[in-house]
Amino acid sequence: MPTQKPSKSEQTRQRILAAATAEFATYGEAGSRIDSIAKTAKANKSLIYDYFGSKKQLFQAVLERHLSDVYQDVHFDPADLTGYATMLFDIAMDRPNLMRLVMWNGLEQNRAWPLDETSSFATQVTKIREAQAAGGINKEYPPDFLLTLIITLASAWTAANPLGTSIVPDVAERRLSFRAALAKAVSQLSQPD
Amino acid sequence: MPTQKPSKSEQTRQRILAAATAEFATYGEAGSRIDSIAKTAKANKSLIYDYFGSKKQLFQAVLERHLSDVYQDVHFDPADLTGYATMLFDIAMDRPNLMRLVMWNGLEQNRAWPLDETSSFATQVTKIREAQAAGGINKEYPPDFLLTLIITLASAWTAANPLGTSIVPDVAERRLSFRAALAKAVSQLSQPD
Repeated sequence: MPTQKPSKSEQTRQRILAAATAEFATYGEAGSRIDSIAKTAKANKSLIYDYFGSKKQLFQAVLERHLSDVYQDVHFDPADLTGYATMLFDIAMDRPNLMRLVMWNGLEQNRAWPLDETSSFATQVTKIREAQAAGGINKEYPPDFLLTLIITLASAWTAANPLGTSIVPDVAERRLSFRAALAKAVSQLSQPD
Repeated sequence: MPTQKPSKSEQTRQRILAAATAEFATYGEAGSRIDSIAKTAKANKSLIYDYFGSKKQLFQAVLERHLSDVYQDVHFDPADLTGYATMLFDIAMDRPNLMRLVMWNGLEQNRAWPLDETSSFATQVTKIREAQAAGGINKEYPPDFLLTLIITLASAWTAANPLGTSIVPDVAERRLSFRAALAKAVSQLSQPD
């Protein structure tokens, strides 16, 4: 059976989401204009409100769409913190718009990094604590210190960090070297004595 | 001689800067309203433009004022990366508004973390590289990787980071333990073999 062609309204919806991604990633929610999104998407302004509700709801729809793309790739295993760190590093380096959306979300809405249920921070912290008790991970660091270090450092050379790309302007060309340094640092800190 | 009392116009300027700090830290430049700053400062709106120029210029004046307060405390010594990390940690934890201003500055203006000349990233990276060559710091990490790690982790539990305070909501009460873990991690990674 041939794949069904997306309906016209679905195509319009996709164009709106693409235009909104670019606008929101650049200007945030407050600085973005629905007029400008409508123009880029070649869509009627009132249609955007019909489809998505308010500007705030459109922002959330855009953010959630991009997050759902990455959730399926994220797998947290306390026995392989190094692998977790490099996986996050690859996701962050490959998705500059997502990183900016997450930052705007945090600043404008004062909302936390939107992880899904199964990879919630509390769950990950508990798993690290259990692995420390079992002797698999260095006990000398608080488990939530280690988790912050891993996630923060994995995204340090993206818009999620105000200085990483200032310190390392050529990180794109040196990506493999930084990926290896990240793996080494996480391994060194998490290794039990 | 008695200290001279600040002039009335200087007092007004101070009230404007205080009101602008709160408004900009909360809403960023795009989301802030000069009307609202004028009201909080009990100052005439046109006076704000007379004193500071545009809203953008007022934002820069506020940011620079807060940064100049901390520049005098910042001293970078490659022989004491641990001391540098904990000093930055204390500055970041004590100045939530500054951290939010720096984040807005990075996102809205696409500008780098505004360090002054003597503590520029390039200078610090060069000093770490020299210390590595002299055998004082672990050579296995790129110097700009180490610098990013130190500055990023030192400010990880502030608004400069989208997730630190989500992972560790009670970081204020556990501040000393996190400060010690930071010192230990920096020491462990930078120590030569």
